Amino acid sequence: MGTTLVVNPGSSSKKYALFSCGKQAMSIRFEKTANSFELIKQIPGEQCQTELITKEEFTSSVKMVQDLVDKYIFREHISQINSVVIRVVAPGTFFQRHAEIDDEYIQQLETKSNLAPIHIPIILREIYDVKNIFKNTRLIAASDSEFYKDMPKHARLYSIDRKDSVELDLYRFGYHGLSVSSIVNRIHSIVGIDPENLIVCHLGSGCSVTAVKNGMGVETTMGFSPTSGLPMSSRAGDLDSSALLYIMSEKGLKPREADLYLNTRGGLVGLSGESDIRKLLDLRARQDENATIALDTFAYNIRKAIASCSVALGGIDVIVLTATAAVRSSELRELVLTNLEYLGVLLSKDRNNMMVGKDGIISVNNSPVKVVVMRTDEMGEMAAVVTRFN
Amino acid sequence: MGTTLVVNPGSSSKKYALFSCGKQAMSIRFEKTANSFELIKQIPGEQCQTELITKEEFTSSVKMVQDLVDKYIFREHISQINSVVIRVVAPGTFFQRHAEIDDEYIQQLETKSNLAPIHIPIILREIYDVKNIFKNTRLIAASDSEFYKDMPKHARLYSIDRKDSVELDLYRFGYHGLSVSSIVNRIHSIVGIDPENLIVCHLGSGCSVTAVKNGMGVETTMGFSPTSGLPMSSRAGDLDSSALLYIMSEKGLKPREADLYLNTRGGLVGLSGESDIRKLLDLRARQDENATIALDTFAYNIRKAIASCSVALGGIDVIVLTATAAVRSSELRELVLTNLEYLGVLLSKDRNNMMVGKDGIISVNNSPVKVVVMRTDEMGEMAAVVTRFN
Repeated sequence: MGTTLVVNPGSSSKKYALFSCGKQAMSIRFEKTANSFELIKQIPGEQCQTELITKEEFTSSVKMVQDLVDKYIFREHISQINSVVIRVVAPGTFFQRHAEIDDEYIQQLETKSNLAPIHIPIILREIYDVKNIFKNTRLIAASDSEFYKDMPKHARLYSIDRKDSVELDLYRFGYHGLSVSSIVNRIHSIVGIDPENLIVCHLGSGCSVTAVKNGMGVETTMGFSPTSGLPMSSRAGDLDSSALLYIMSEKGLKPREADLYLNTRGGLVGLSGESDIRKLLDLRARQDENATIALDTFAYNIRKAIASCSVALGGIDVIVLTATAAVRSSELRELVLTNLEYLGVLLSKDRNNMMVGKDGIISVNNSPVKVVVMRTDEMGEMAAVVTRFN
Repeated sequence: MGTTLVVNPGSSSKKYALFSCGKQAMSIRFEKTANSFELIKQIPGEQCQTELITKEEFTSSVKMVQDLVDKYIFREHISQINSVVIRVVAPGTFFQRHAEIDDEYIQQLETKSNLAPIHIPIILREIYDVKNIFKNTRLIAASDSEFYKDMPKHARLYSIDRKDSVELDLYRFGYHGLSVSSIVNRIHSIVGIDPENLIVCHLGSGCSVTAVKNGMGVETTMGFSPTSGLPMSSRAGDLDSSALLYIMSEKGLKPREADLYLNTRGGLVGLSGESDIRKLLDLRARQDENATIALDTFAYNIRKAIASCSVALGGIDVIVLTATAAVRSSELRELVLTNLEYLGVLLSKDRNNMMVGKDGIISVNNSPVKVVVMRTDEMGEMAAVVTRFN
């Protein structure tokens, strides 16, 4: 299996992990906070180390990662890195598969850069840095959409001119596939079966609901872009097209500016001015009206999506809540899964409250639908992607 | 109650009806067909009359209506028209109520004309004609959104900047309210109760699904504009915002052109080139691939919407299918309501097949959810709106 470096770049955080013989050996996270930059290094069994870094160090994170990795490899006598795998979030049938990154792949990303100005430039920058620093190392793209590549046509198509769909490659690609895949691969260990009908709610900074039939992604809330579907931290999710066109006309926004508007001024931030769910829950506990309506809207849309996705399954056996927001807050989980008794979702208040930082079941024993809280493992899933290319 | 003229203008058909003492006395329909224009006049108990008319006559329909109405009033010795009521489909909190049309109302419509270039100009044209021809007659606007005016905030809000929502009056207004209201007022006569949890699927040239809780509209698929939600005859319904912006960039479309694109080249037309559901069902029966995928996508999205809307109710007691497409075709109804057994929807094949041109139940006796086919009565509902202004 060798040694793999996993790269998961974002705009406000960059995550790296070293995998040796299929196990995570070290994780390195770079975070942009309100007024500083931090590096967080964690080696299993050792104390977590946090240090302040400069903006330049945040930008040239790959170089710092190389130094840390080199030291670790020397100390532990493990083999040199033979693969780097990077998460790719990009709209297009071409990107809906894991792939070895060659010149054509990079060119395709460059061509589509305008299409996802929030995501692709960050990925490209990271690829350039990795190629420059880890010379002659195989570079693999872990597609965040591959999990949805076999979604049935009636779920994959938009109701627009078919010719335009073909020419512009306009389909519902879906995202969060690596996260959902990591749940599918581990759900058996929690519920003792591989559920036929599974719903996965990924509630992080990005949010989505996915329907999984016998392990296959058959429906999801995100479509062509990861901006659509649910309201998220700062992404608007679905919006009436005429309303978007009206906003553009009134504010004089060009398409690219409108895209930025939807990605940065929507969701919880748009509804309340605040994106931190913990802060919003605190405010809501103190009867703050904006926080209450923001969280209610957020939770209500997730519930609607769970029901909507269940149609693709013909019923629900298991619902998994995953990603930071869901794993961290029992209060949010209760808010999200309220009033779904008619779908067979019976939450146990006690189990839900006691589930902190662990994976497990939070529904009552006789709940027709089992509800599970699980930490996502995108990094592990990406490391596993590499083995397909051996 | 007096005599009321009901006016329901559209781009390809204009409907008029005369109501005397609360009963429909005459209906007059103007239809634009592939290569001609027709006038269809129907008086209850008399034979339906169809005649070819010119394009000019279609355009100046109100004048022809006046002549026909005058003749009828003279013949039947009923009182002169004392109210004209017209259906208004327009985005805005101002339009989310029935109202007497005064100068301010007309000015508001003119101001918002750009906002709904497909709908408002047709309504304005009709108002000008009616005011000109039926001088000194009270003119009432029957709002197609009023039914949704008390939708809870979490359903009414888009997840965008709250300040922009307020300033631009950007909310989920909902449409098809007159049709749904006409169902709510008559459902008792079919199922013997006023259902607590009712879903109404309006499947005509426009399509929507509405959740009704104790008679009140609490959720619906249409939002700010009647272009959103489900795929329709030629309207695209919901589309990923980034995908729309991409189409605009690639095709060089301005907001207004994009709006036209979404309204005329989406839905069934976009998916298959054909908007007539009867033709599509025929083609599907002959294994035509495009027709099959178009109808499958159409039906699948309706099912998803039914499930999604059910969340606002916490369960479903009754589902009503209404409007032309649903009333006319048992095949379509079966296609739409397939695989919803897990929600308690058990269709009776026999009852469904036998339900032609009538109102009634098409679910099996022990179906947890009663499924009903009902003709809509927008015109009667509009006539009833007038009585609120007496």
